[in-house]
Amino acid sequence: MKYISLLGATGSIGIQTLDVIRNNPEQFKLVAISAGKNIELVRKILLEFKPEYVSVQYKEDYDKLKIEYPQGFTFGYGSEGLMEAAVYHKSDILLNSVIGSVGLNPTLEAIKEKKTIALANKETLVTAGHLVMTHAKENNVPIIPVDSEHSAIYQCLQGEKLSSVNRLIITASGGSFRDYKREDLKNVTLEQALSHPNWSMGSKITIDSATMMNKGLEVIEAHWLFDKPYEKIDVLLHRESIIHSMVEYDDSSIIAQLGTPDMRVPIQYALTYPDRFHFQTENRLDLAKIGQLHFEEMDFERFRCLEFAYEAGKRGGTLPTVLNAANEVAVHAFLSGKISFLSIEDLIEKALARHTTIKNPDLETIQDVDAETRVYVNSLT
Amino acid sequence: MKYISLLGATGSIGIQTLDVIRNNPEQFKLVAISAGKNIELVRKILLEFKPEYVSVQYKEDYDKLKIEYPQGFTFGYGSEGLMEAAVYHKSDILLNSVIGSVGLNPTLEAIKEKKTIALANKETLVTAGHLVMTHAKENNVPIIPVDSEHSAIYQCLQGEKLSSVNRLIITASGGSFRDYKREDLKNVTLEQALSHPNWSMGSKITIDSATMMNKGLEVIEAHWLFDKPYEKIDVLLHRESIIHSMVEYDDSSIIAQLGTPDMRVPIQYALTYPDRFHFQTENRLDLAKIGQLHFEEMDFERFRCLEFAYEAGKRGGTLPTVLNAANEVAVHAFLSGKISFLSIEDLIEKALARHTTIKNPDLETIQDVDAETRVYVNSLT
Repeated sequence: MKYISLLGATGSIGIQTLDVIRNNPEQFKLVAISAGKNIELVRKILLEFKPEYVSVQYKEDYDKLKIEYPQGFTFGYGSEGLMEAAVYHKSDILLNSVIGSVGLNPTLEAIKEKKTIALANKETLVTAGHLVMTHAKENNVPIIPVDSEHSAIYQCLQGEKLSSVNRLIITASGGSFRDYKREDLKNVTLEQALSHPNWSMGSKITIDSATMMNKGLEVIEAHWLFDKPYEKIDVLLHRESIIHSMVEYDDSSIIAQLGTPDMRVPIQYALTYPDRFHFQTENRLDLAKIGQLHFEEMDFERFRCLEFAYEAGKRGGTLPTVLNAANEVAVHAFLSGKISFLSIEDLIEKALARHTTIKNPDLETIQDVDAETRVYVNSLT
Repeated sequence: MKYISLLGATGSIGIQTLDVIRNNPEQFKLVAISAGKNIELVRKILLEFKPEYVSVQYKEDYDKLKIEYPQGFTFGYGSEGLMEAAVYHKSDILLNSVIGSVGLNPTLEAIKEKKTIALANKETLVTAGHLVMTHAKENNVPIIPVDSEHSAIYQCLQGEKLSSVNRLIITASGGSFRDYKREDLKNVTLEQALSHPNWSMGSKITIDSATMMNKGLEVIEAHWLFDKPYEKIDVLLHRESIIHSMVEYDDSSIIAQLGTPDMRVPIQYALTYPDRFHFQTENRLDLAKIGQLHFEEMDFERFRCLEFAYEAGKRGGTLPTVLNAANEVAVHAFLSGKISFLSIEDLIEKALARHTTIKNPDLETIQDVDAETRVYVNSLT
C-alpha cells in the first residue's frame, strides 16, 4: 500500500489521479490533498476518499469546512496548508499537480522529507530545475514525471544508460491552431483556443498547447529531468499524439512509448513505478484501426513561444523564470478576455528582452524575479 | 575486448557482422568463423580479420585452403568444423547466422560452454526452442536475438518485468507481394519474389518474407525467447519497416523500437549488449522526412503460411520441426525453379497434415523428424 499526498486535487490531473486511486483501492490510499476554490468537489473527495489532511486556497472555505466536518479531518489553507499537505507525515508519494510556480516550495520541502515526487507541475522544473534536481540527487529521491511526454521518455530510458542517449524527441500534437497559418492567428477567439484536438486538460495548459509554450516548457523540463543539453532535445509535430515521445540512442535505435491519449496512464505509471499495474480501458491502442501516424518538422517561426523557450533555456539563470511568469500572466489575461491570442507572445518577448539574467539563482532570487515579472507583465495588460 | 565466433560468415548477416566488427576494432576481435562455399570471400576474411579458426562446408575447399595458408590458421570442414568454430575456446560470443536447422547443434554446444549466444539462426528456436531455452536457463547464458523484430522486443523489455507484458506485437513489411491479391500470386516469378521492398537479405529469408512464413517462424521464435503464449503474440502489417516491433504492457503502454532498416544495428546491439555503442550512419531515422507510418491488420487467408505457423506453434511438439523442414525444402525447390510460388504452402500443408505430433521431443527425435520430413517433401517436388 502506497500513501499519497495530492496537490491540486480538484484540477484536471488531480481528478484523473483520484480515478487511478479509486481503481486501485488495494494499492493506494489518499492521505492528504490540497485544492483551490472548488469546495463542492472537495466535499465529494472527503466523503469518498477520506484523506486525513485537507487544505484549500481561502480561509473562508477553510472556516466553512471546519464547521461542516468537525471530526475526522484536519484542515488547512493557503500556502501554509499547501505545504502541510505536501509533507504530510504519512505520505510516501507527493503527486504535485498544482498549476504555476506556487508548486515549487512544496516540491522542495517534500524532497527534504524523502517523499517520492510524481511531478505534474512543470513550472517547478522550469523555474528552479537546478535546485530541484540537486535536492533530489542529494536526498536520493526519484522525480517521476507525470506529463505524458516526460513519462514516455522516462519509460524509454528504463534499463538504459543516460550516457548512451543521443537525442530526446518530444512529440507535439500542435494544439488547437495547428492547421492555422500565422496570419490566421490574429483573430482567433478564446473558445477556439480552448478546444484541444487530442487531450482533455485544464484551460492554462490548453492555451499553452495552442501557443506551443507548453512544448517549450516541456523542453526545459526535459533538460533538467534527463540532464541533456538543449541541442539534444528536439520537438516533432505528430498530430495523433499516439507516440508520446522518444529517445534516440547512440547506436541510432529509437525507443518510443505509445498509447491512446489518456493522462491516467502516465499518472498510474508514476504511482506504480517501477512496477506496472493493469489499466482498465476500452481504448487500448489499435494501430491497424488508426491506420496512419503523421510527422512534421516544427515551424519555429509559426510558433514563436517555442523559440523563446529554447532561448531562455539555453541562456539559463533566471530567464526561464521570467519566461514562465510572463507566460502565466499573459495566458491569464487572454483567458480573462483582456488581450488577444498573439499578444501572449508579445508580452513574453517584452519581459524576456527587459530582464538581465542572474546566473545560478537561489530560491529567493527566483521568487523575486517571478514576482517582479508578474507586476511588469500585468502592467502591460 | 569481446572475442567472437561467427557462423555463416559469408552470408548476408555474416557480412554485415564483419562490417560491425570492422567498425569497432577496439571492441571486437573475430577469432573463429564458419563459411559455406564462397571461398573467395573466405580468403578476404582471412586476410582482413585473421580469425584463428576457419571452417568451410566442403573437404576439397578445406584441402585447398590448408595448402594456400600453411601457417597462422587452423582449418576445419563440415558439421564437425562448424561445431569447432561455435565452441572455439577463445570466443566469448557465438553469433550464429547459419541458415536452417543445421544451426541447432552448434548453439546447444556453445551454450554448454557458457558462450553468450547472439542468435540470427531462427530455425534453432523454431525446431528446438524448449531445448535451447532450458539449456540457456540452466547454464545462465543470455540468448540475444539478432533478427530486427526480436532485437526490437528485447530492447523494449529492458528494465521491465516479463510478467507485466500483455502482448508482443511483431511488425511485418508484407514482403515482395504485399500489394498482390491472392489470385495474383499464381504466376509470380522467382525474380519478383526476390525483390524485397525494405531489407537486403539472403534469398531464403526473402522468399520466406514473400510467403509470410518468415513472420510465422518469428512468432514461434518470440514464443520461446520471451516465454509468451501464442495468444499474446500478434503480427501487424507495417509497410515501412520503421517500427521493428513493440511490446504492450498491462497498463496499456506500448514500447516500440524504431530505426532505418539496417541489420547492422541489431547485430551491433547483440554484440555490445547491455551497452550501446555509437553506430556510424548517414541514415539516422528522420520521421519528419518520412512523414507517415502505415499499419494494417494481417490477412491470414491471404498469407496461409502464417496461419500454419501459429497452428504448428500452438500444437507444439515436433510440429514446428515439420513446418520448418517442409518450408526449407519447398523454398529450395522454388529457388531451383522446380515448383511454383503457391506450391510452397501446399507442400507445407501436406507435410503438416501427414505428421503425428510427438510431444517434448529430444534432440534425436527432432533430427529424425526433420530428416524424414525433408525426404517426404522432396519426393513431392
